[in-house]
Amino acid sequence: MFNARSGAFDHRKYRPAPKVPSFDRRWPDAEITKAPIWVSEDLRDGNQALLEPMSVEHKKRLWALLVAVGIKEIMVGFPSASQPDYDFVRWLIDEDQIPGDVTIAVLVQAREHLIERTFEALHGVPRAIVHLYNSTSPVQRERVFGMDRAGIIEIARQGTRWVRERADARPGTEWRLEYTPESFSSTEIDFSLEICEAVLDVWQPTAENKVILNLPTTVEVASPNHHADQIEYFCRHISRRDCVIISVHTHNDRGGAVASAELALLAGAERVEGTLLGNGERTGNMDIVTLAMNLYSQGVDPKLDLSRPDEIIEVVTECTQLPVHPRHPYVGELVYTAFSGSHQDAIRKSLKRQGEDEPWQVAYLPIDPRDLGRDYQAVIRVNSQSGKGGMAFLLERDHGISLPRWMMLELAPHVQRESERRSGELSSDDVRSILVREYAVAAPYRLKGYRSDRGDGEQLRVVLAHGEQEVIVEGEGNGVISAFMAGWERMSGQRVSVIDYSEHALGEGSDANAIAFVQLSVEGRRVCGMAEDGDTVSASLKAVISALNRAMVERGEVVGSGESLAV
Amino acid sequence: MFNARSGAFDHRKYRPAPKVPSFDRRWPDAEITKAPIWVSEDLRDGNQALLEPMSVEHKKRLWALLVAVGIKEIMVGFPSASQPDYDFVRWLIDEDQIPGDVTIAVLVQAREHLIERTFEALHGVPRAIVHLYNSTSPVQRERVFGMDRAGIIEIARQGTRWVRERADARPGTEWRLEYTPESFSSTEIDFSLEICEAVLDVWQPTAENKVILNLPTTVEVASPNHHADQIEYFCRHISRRDCVIISVHTHNDRGGAVASAELALLAGAERVEGTLLGNGERTGNMDIVTLAMNLYSQGVDPKLDLSRPDEIIEVVTECTQLPVHPRHPYVGELVYTAFSGSHQDAIRKSLKRQGEDEPWQVAYLPIDPRDLGRDYQAVIRVNSQSGKGGMAFLLERDHGISLPRWMMLELAPHVQRESERRSGELSSDDVRSILVREYAVAAPYRLKGYRSDRGDGEQLRVVLAHGEQEVIVEGEGNGVISAFMAGWERMSGQRVSVIDYSEHALGEGSDANAIAFVQLSVEGRRVCGMAEDGDTVSASLKAVISALNRAMVERGEVVGSGESLAV
Repeated sequence: MFNARSGAFDHRKYRPAPKVPSFDRRWPDAEITKAPIWVSEDLRDGNQALLEPMSVEHKKRLWALLVAVGIKEIMVGFPSASQPDYDFVRWLIDEDQIPGDVTIAVLVQAREHLIERTFEALHGVPRAIVHLYNSTSPVQRERVFGMDRAGIIEIARQGTRWVRERADARPGTEWRLEYTPESFSSTEIDFSLEICEAVLDVWQPTAENKVILNLPTTVEVASPNHHADQIEYFCRHISRRDCVIISVHTHNDRGGAVASAELALLAGAERVEGTLLGNGERTGNMDIVTLAMNLYSQGVDPKLDLSRPDEIIEVVTECTQLPVHPRHPYVGELVYTAFSGSHQDAIRKSLKRQGEDEPWQVAYLPIDPRDLGRDYQAVIRVNSQSGKGGMAFLLERDHGISLPRWMMLELAPHVQRESERRSGELSSDDVRSILVREYAVAAPYRLKGYRSDRGDGEQLRVVLAHGEQEVIVEGEGNGVISAFMAGWERMSGQRVSVIDYSEHALGEGSDANAIAFVQLSVEGRRVCGMAEDGDTVSASLKAVISALNRAMVERGEVVGSGESLAV
Repeated sequence: MFNARSGAFDHRKYRPAPKVPSFDRRWPDAEITKAPIWVSEDLRDGNQALLEPMSVEHKKRLWALLVAVGIKEIMVGFPSASQPDYDFVRWLIDEDQIPGDVTIAVLVQAREHLIERTFEALHGVPRAIVHLYNSTSPVQRERVFGMDRAGIIEIARQGTRWVRERADARPGTEWRLEYTPESFSSTEIDFSLEICEAVLDVWQPTAENKVILNLPTTVEVASPNHHADQIEYFCRHISRRDCVIISVHTHNDRGGAVASAELALLAGAERVEGTLLGNGERTGNMDIVTLAMNLYSQGVDPKLDLSRPDEIIEVVTECTQLPVHPRHPYVGELVYTAFSGSHQDAIRKSLKRQGEDEPWQVAYLPIDPRDLGRDYQAVIRVNSQSGKGGMAFLLERDHGISLPRWMMLELAPHVQRESERRSGELSSDDVRSILVREYAVAAPYRLKGYRSDRGDGEQLRVVLAHGEQEVIVEGEGNGVISAFMAGWERMSGQRVSVIDYSEHALGEGSDANAIAFVQLSVEGRRVCGMAEDGDTVSASLKAVISALNRAMVERGEVVGSGESLAV
């Protein structure tokens, strides 16, 4: 057949995915005029693809975000297969967390004990979508399940029966069925239709109680137009079109998840499953933010509130531990930044001519960045508005300073304020000056010297200057910092502890300065400090003293000197 | 018109981009059967969009990579506008760096002195593409240039004349013209055709000496099918189709750069401009790797050698300082990793049944990861094969250890070897054990205690244990580490210096341990060490001593103790 060594780079071992038969497609002439039903897969497909699955706290934060953004159908997990998912579903129901206009969905395979357990998990929910699936492609049939078409259809039919029986026995809940012929993208279209018809025959949907048929690119195996062909062909051949909602669920294996979903909407899909910013198995799910903003930028109401993308980024990156690429459509740090002089010039000219009450017409900016809480400055050149990344980059590139993440978050608002005040670009020197001004606070206390004696533990004696006075801090601990903190507590009466610290060399060589950052808790309040010194210990101690000074300056009082000072 | 506050999240201020008139499109029935002409924009569009433009060294590395991958047309910059670009072009020509089957392209605006300077930059090149552009969309015409259609056409016509004259005067070079109606995606299709016809009228291309007409989505403003419509409509209406090469250049503003280029190939485009991994203005250019792998996975020879993606990633990330997202199609760290039990099971079953000499048929894996130098283990679960990111993630997640980048690079081969030896998954404890085993080397020298005295400088006295002996190291310096290094040099006679160091707290609280990493130069060789201790100074000193021990163990000798020891 071919003579390629396995594992060698040789295209001859691949075949194109099956396409639909030729037909008079209409989708290329269609337009999207309204938003689809958005479905979040963040807590299921997204969560299942993480190195570290989300904690309960993360799930709660993400749930709150999804509701706040305005997503009305939220897939919450696989409660029959995962105890954490089960517990989360129970928390949603028992704590009455589901708003009246939101429906939860749960995933289940076509196996009776799993379906039974799923209904237990959902006990008492006002309404829910039970999402049943089995896999249908030739590879799955022949190589994974070892079954013929009839056998695979029987799995779907029997699964639907089991769901139907349990739903009928629990009339207190408004039940809906979602069925997915999993691996639809690699399945012959006639077989996808056949198995879905079998499911409809069992369920007997009506125009009032529709079945959701979800047609995924479980693996994206062809260009987006082929997915659109599959969807239109399916829509035009399914027998009870008015009794079904056609849903899509695209993955990004070929970089086409958003385009496939968008073209599927042209082809008749009404519902889109995806995640905020595109987390999900392998290359990820379709990014709801991008597709919704695509509609928005064409004048179509996305029916989602995406005006605070930084909040979305914060919650999603914390929950997934995955970064957002600086070039991510609409929300990446670099996407409203123009570096080229001709682009900057064109943007400036068209911004100047942009009227308040006319459609948006600005070169190189597909939307007004201010709609997403970004600013025009950002498009002109790197400054604070280009985000924490830009600021951190400048410090690292020009000063060799690598900020720990908590310090970036601390510093960002100060940089932001300064650049707003100047309404212009900040240089890396400016950013460093702000860092030093805000966090290297050398008064009222200043380090004069220290003596450290180390055997089993640390014996530390530090001499501080306070104006003309000398103040001695003596303490013991398992290290210099903890010894100083213990001594400071004794001297000042304050409760203090270290939350985090970070120190690194500035440049190469034994003589290189060290820069230290600390985050303390001072009387329960978090406060940061930094310092630079030729000596690593002095840098640490000075950073701690800076933070303590900063806490005093903020509160307008000085401890340990026997007097109170308004600053 | 509408009543939206500027800067508010309100879709009503946007209008859809102009579409082509309805016509009997054929592209949805077409198939891609061969690779397009690939054109790299890495050194131009890519470089121009960077926070820090590439150095000459970076440009040379990237050039070598582009040639090695097999790209035959390489855009190398804007020599008339940028001295570094000019110098780079001269280096390519003067140092005879352009292989016989590679053609360079340079960008220029339709201004006479810039065109003159461009030809100077290209003096003596055997063949080159002069890429002329001007902007054509209504916004650009009306709001940026303040010109009517005729004026914009005259710019293109005059620019083409200037290029023609200079090309005719330099017959030693094989000149080709590329013309771009910039902002084509937002330009009325009839005007795009009109301005390109004007260029062809001046240039008078033949079937042997074709003009390249490059039709970009300068900003992506519509779904990929509309771009395909534009391209097919253009191809079918341009007058001398056999005398032109149709090129596309897509951006990713709506997440559709790859799909737009792919559908444009169906619609008649023959040439694609993009970058390796998608760097470029704003959301980036089309990613050549993804599109080429899309062809590959359908059995089409991409005519590029992408079998060593890790090399591509290494060079591109170093040159651009931009990360590759873990879910990047084909090459991201997580894309061959299956976490779900059912996916793992299906992959295992279908891998087992995959014959050597039959088309690839494995569930959830669009291609054989081994084609790209990845491994099957990677798909089963996170292990060393998932790259430095996975390893660093495990250490951070489970142990709170954040490795500096140079330490990641140091540790990676040790982790790799261990996982290959076990041919299985490594836990985070395993990774930590390898880190400690390799880099926390407590013999022959061990820290017993130290005394540090600090006034103007550092006076340090360190007691080391060497077997039963005590060894005293005394030194002065501007800090603890430099004082120790000075003392060590005196004691041992070795030349030692610090290249880098990094230290951070493990967990919260004043009692948290510190972990320190150092990279030393010992007799000119780089050697790393690490240590953990309750005291930050002890951690630093122990890390330095570990590195010194490590250097001795590697060289099989011990310094400073008066004896030589084979280890």
